[in-house]
Amino acid sequence: MPDPLTFEDFPASEIVEYGGVEVSAEEIIAFAREFDPQPFHLDHEAARGATGGLIASGWHTAALLMRMNCDGFLTGAGVVGEGGIEEIRWQLPVRPGDRLHVRRRTLASRARDSRAGEVEFLYEVVNQDGLVAMTQRSVLLFERRPQSRRG
Amino acid sequence: MPDPLTFEDFPASEIVEYGGVEVSAEEIIAFAREFDPQPFHLDHEAARGATGGLIASGWHTAALLMRMNCDGFLTGAGVVGEGGIEEIRWQLPVRPGDRLHVRRRTLASRARDSRAGEVEFLYEVVNQDGLVAMTQRSVLLFERRPQSRRG
Repeated sequence: MPDPLTFEDFPASEIVEYGGVEVSAEEIIAFAREFDPQPFHLDHEAARGATGGLIASGWHTAALLMRMNCDGFLTGAGVVGEGGIEEIRWQLPVRPGDRLHVRRRTLASRARDSRAGEVEFLYEVVNQDGLVAMTQRSVLLFERRPQSRRG
Repeated sequence: MPDPLTFEDFPASEIVEYGGVEVSAEEIIAFAREFDPQPFHLDHEAARGATGGLIASGWHTAALLMRMNCDGFLTGAGVVGEGGIEEIRWQLPVRPGDRLHVRRRTLASRARDSRAGEVEFLYEVVNQDGLVAMTQRSVLLFERRPQSRRG
C-alpha cells in the first residue's frame, strides 16, 4: 500500500477534479423511499408539476459526494479527525440520467502542531453540463508527514 | 387532508420531539457499501480497533434525520424554499441497535413578507441513552397562513 495522504498533500488553493457517477431514476426512488419520501423524489407524475419531473433528494446527492470523496482520496488518506460540515447548498436539481463529478478546492490549510493539520475544502458537485448542483464546505484534520519524509 | 403547516406553526423557542428508528448492523453496512465504504462502517472486525466496533456513516445518520423530519412534519408542511444546511456536527458514534429520535428547536422565526416566512431549526439526533449523536442547523422557508385563517 502507498503511504497515506497527509496534511502536506493538500496545499491551499489547489483545485482537483475526480469522480463520475450516473444517477438513475431507480436509484433516486430507492433512496427517497428509505430516507426522503416526498412526492417529487418518488414519483414521475407527482413531480411533473412541482419540480418539472423527478429530482433526487439533496441527501442522496450528499451521499454520492461522500462516495466520490472516498474513492477519490479519503480511503487513502490519514484522517485523524473531522470538524463536521460547515455548509451545504443545493443549487440545481439532480435528475435521472445526470452524470456527476466533484471539483474540490482547498480553501485553507493550517498546521495545528507537529502531528496534525486542518484542511478546509469546498466541494462542488458538477453535472454533465458543467453546472454546479451542490456545494459543501467542511474541515478535515489530517496527520502530518513524518519529519524523515519531509522536504 | 388537514391544512398544511405554515410559518405560524413554528414559533421561536419551541422544542418538540418526534421520530424513533432503530439502526441495524445490516442497514449500516448496506448504506456504507453504497455511499461511504470506509472500513469502520463496513466490517465489525476492521472497526474493532479504529472505533471500538462498527459505526454508522455520518451521512446515514443525516439521512435518517431527514426521514424522521419527513414523517414528523415536513410532508405535511407548506415548504416553499430551503436555504440549505448551515452546520452538521457528529458528536457521538451511532452503533448497531441504537434507537434514535429527533429533538427540534426553533432558533428563529422571521416573516419575510405577507406570503412567506423563514424558520431556523436546530435538530438534535438523540439516542436511547438521551445523548446527542448529531446536530444539524438549517433554514426552511414556509408559506404563511392565509389572512382569513389567522388570529
